[in-house]
Amino acid sequence: MPYWFDYPIRVQPHHTDYSGVVWHGNYIQWMESLRVNCLRQFGVRFEAFVDAGYDLPVVDLQLRYHHPLRLGMAGIVKGHATTQGVRILWTYEIRANDPDDVDQLCVTSQITIVPVEIARRKIARRLPDELQQQLDAISEYFKSP
Amino acid sequence: MPYWFDYPIRVQPHHTDYSGVVWHGNYIQWMESLRVNCLRQFGVRFEAFVDAGYDLPVVDLQLRYHHPLRLGMAGIVKGHATTQGVRILWTYEIRANDPDDVDQLCVTSQITIVPVEIARRKIARRLPDELQQQLDAISEYFKSP
Amino acid sequence: MPYWFDYPIRVQPHHTDYSGVVWHGNYIQWMESLRVNCLRQFGVRFEAFVDAGYDLPVVDLQLRYHHPLRLGMAGIVKGHATTQGVRILWTYEIRANDPDDVDQLCVTSQITIVPVEIARRKIARRLPDELQQQLDAISEYFKSP
Amino acid sequence: MPYWFDYPIRVQPHHTDYSGVVWHGNYIQWMESLRVNCLRQFGVRFEAFVDAGYDLPVVDLQLRYHHPLRLGMAGIVKGHATTQGVRILWTYEIRANDPDDVDQLCVTSQITIVPVEIARRKIARRLPDELQQQLDAISEYFKSP
Repeated sequence: MPYWFDYPIRVQPHHTDYSGVVWHGNYIQWMESLRVNCLRQFGVRFEAFVDAGYDLPVVDLQLRYHHPLRLGMAGIVKGHATTQGVRILWTYEIRANDPDDVDQLCVTSQITIVPVEIARRKIARRLPDELQQQLDAISEYFKSP
Repeated sequence: MPYWFDYPIRVQPHHTDYSGVVWHGNYIQWMESLRVNCLRQFGVRFEAFVDAGYDLPVVDLQLRYHHPLRLGMAGIVKGHATTQGVRILWTYEIRANDPDDVDQLCVTSQITIVPVEIARRKIARRLPDELQQQLDAISEYFKSP
Repeated sequence: MPYWFDYPIRVQPHHTDYSGVVWHGNYIQWMESLRVNCLRQFGVRFEAFVDAGYDLPVVDLQLRYHHPLRLGMAGIVKGHATTQGVRILWTYEIRANDPDDVDQLCVTSQITIVPVEIARRKIARRLPDELQQQLDAISEYFKSP
Repeated sequence: MPYWFDYPIRVQPHHTDYSGVVWHGNYIQWMESLRVNCLRQFGVRFEAFVDAGYDLPVVDLQLRYHHPLRLGMAGIVKGHATTQGVRILWTYEIRANDPDDVDQLCVTSQITIVPVEIARRKIARRLPDELQQQLDAISEYFKSP
């Protein structure tokens, strides 16, 4: 059973659409916030990559919607990272965290990130040692926390 | 070679992030606008589904990012629909449409939509005949325009 | 010196635009989150208004931008409410909360909210006693916490 | 009676919130799109400012909400610009453009923009002659089209 990094959320009016539930594209913001906060908790600032000349774009994104989160509901975004060389794979579950709907699975997702050299707009074959070691340490922690 | 419905776009400041290209989650808004505009061109108002008690939520979304669209660039979102019973499958390509970058493939995507009965929040086994016929007519048109 | 309700923020990639700072329209989401969270802390669920048939739309919004918040920076949205009959006036300050930029004033804002009867889409002359008393209690607390 | 630059809109699901009308912060995106498109129509690319080392941030924004735009409705954003030295003042009206609601005034707004030197993050005392002349020509055109 993997370790998950948790990012708690609350559905605000601006997250919803006419149907009263979270608009399907808005979950992606929360998943990004989880990634950045997780890096930060491990001592890695997202801006450190940018300052070092690397960007971390999403190259593949898969989302499956199981159950909607409604206006006012609390939820938890749960994320889990694995590195494969420079590639970072994130697996997500978003669950309700509400008295009415405890632990209901709402969204599952997988996101692939590949570092890019900002100056050349090319996929980075390798990262500076310090950044790569930091990413690998996070990946190791997720395997055996 | 399939028929595509085209939705032209232009990258505005609010679509971009710090890296100067479209933030990865923002393509999803354009793909929704294409779906609604395509229905409308075939004489189907999206609100007609809602008024009839049906919603059209996205249940599955897959995106692959090939090339970024930068601030100020023009692009074309191209979409193609197929019905499988009540299920609607949309296939997308987003291409640059810029003097500097003609026809460059930027994003490919597949989106699955399943109608839901709003009152019961349950997947609709079937739609009212008129709405189903309208969807099937669009699907047929995409096969042989 | 008034009491402020605080809502801490962190600038994520999706908040920024090409210039590396928060896109000017995105501050408005944080100010809404503050309002809803503040009500909740006083025991008032935003959804209780909707369930009772009232909406709380913004009718006037003024924003002044003093200093940008950059990618990765922490900040605090500070809000303060006063009721005038059914009308609610919110005053805001958004300040940096970053080692590099402690307490820098970034945005000031005033927002006016007027309850609307959802069924008739008309301004509500009065709210149900319970909701009005809850709003007034919040307003009183802000005057003398 | 001033000349207005028009930017036609259609309310898509992602523009709405739980109440079925446009979420109040989303009008700001359309007003930005109008500004950029208006410059472009006068032969000025927004990116030309950025490439020349200048940004055009909003420093003041005032919005008044008169009437909501609902899901599926068409509207027109109407904008009008005046320069005062380097400062640019935009005045807006957003009107419904729908069979059910022709020409209904929905939003009025005023936005002030002040150029900033990107490198020094300081207000620009003056712009390069070519850019200033282009802005002044737009301002003149709005006075006597």
